[in-house]
Amino acid sequence: MSRGRGRPRNPGTDRVILKAALELFIERGFEGTSIEQIAKQAGVGKLTVYRRWAGKEELLPHAIEELVAQAVPWPSDEEIAAASPSDLVEAALDAAAATASDSRFRALIARVLGSSVSNPALMAAYWKHYLLPRRELTKRLLGRAQEQGTVPADADLDVLIDMMAGAVMYRVLQPDPPDRTQMVRFLRHVYRQVGLLAT
Amino acid sequence: MSRGRGRPRNPGTDRVILKAALELFIERGFEGTSIEQIAKQAGVGKLTVYRRWAGKEELLPHAIEELVAQAVPWPSDEEIAAASPSDLVEAALDAAAATASDSRFRALIARVLGSSVSNPALMAAYWKHYLLPRRELTKRLLGRAQEQGTVPADADLDVLIDMMAGAVMYRVLQPDPPDRTQMVRFLRHVYRQVGLLAT
Repeated sequence: MSRGRGRPRNPGTDRVILKAALELFIERGFEGTSIEQIAKQAGVGKLTVYRRWAGKEELLPHAIEELVAQAVPWPSDEEIAAASPSDLVEAALDAAAATASDSRFRALIARVLGSSVSNPALMAAYWKHYLLPRRELTKRLLGRAQEQGTVPADADLDVLIDMMAGAVMYRVLQPDPPDRTQMVRFLRHVYRQVGLLAT
Repeated sequence: MSRGRGRPRNPGTDRVILKAALELFIERGFEGTSIEQIAKQAGVGKLTVYRRWAGKEELLPHAIEELVAQAVPWPSDEEIAAASPSDLVEAALDAAAATASDSRFRALIARVLGSSVSNPALMAAYWKHYLLPRRELTKRLLGRAQEQGTVPADADLDVLIDMMAGAVMYRVLQPDPPDRTQMVRFLRHVYRQVGLLAT
């Protein structure tokens, strides 16, 4: 979360800092990245960074979000209420597969999961601000599919979400990760398995 | 894989080295661990380690296996052929939940996944020697469940395995990880979802 303290902010500077932070995090991990290095790589002073974010625990979730949110458009509450779950899944499939088969995304997932036990602050912040809201939307989508009878009425939706997201994360970190076409096929199997796409 | 070069080996020394390697890896990760440190922590000379393993890429999969294999007994080919899939899953459930809710296991999963992109050699060796054989057994178990009609005939068994294993890995790396009782419940949901336990 940005802080908004001090003088008016230049969104261009924000983007340069976020980009530098993401690159360093992917390259060096959480332990290996400091605000000092981020500032240097972004070509700004340390105070320019601190004016915006209190520390890397706050800045990095924001930086990760830049890569993820721009790549995969998420349906809104209204769209979930109006369209059929399988149509929404079909509409998002190609973009999701493109992101999931991107080597930067793989490296990012490895870094986020890799730091989750040794430095839980990053995962905690990313979870709260970005993952939980998406899980809520996915739950609504699954709830709609339950109403339509394609997802079993007694399914635990949190477990289904962990199975879908976990499958993708685990698959892309295995040796010989899928290319985009293989990822589309993989995602179709996963969505079919939980009842979000017809078999 | 151990090398078996040089003079006869003392299995007690092997165990001390493996234990030291596992501790250092969990604490410092792949990049932060060296054969030199492992030897020092184990109280042996560097050559004593190199006589057994060519490097950390070879030693660490072995060390990880010490923690995992001893904790979760895996059914044999013969047991899979003879017993019902759901009975085998029931029999393994408590031990699997105990391991998956152990904080050392969490830290280990984070380290293995975390190094999978920046240092793929460890994941590649662990995958080939330990994960692939277990996947083959799990595929036979799922194949038996397909014969009995509880797993759909057209399910992709590799995707099911990624969903099951991925769900557990992702769940334990989230904030507020499950305790043993919660993990039993989580695993039951996962196994039911794929058709390995009756609903």
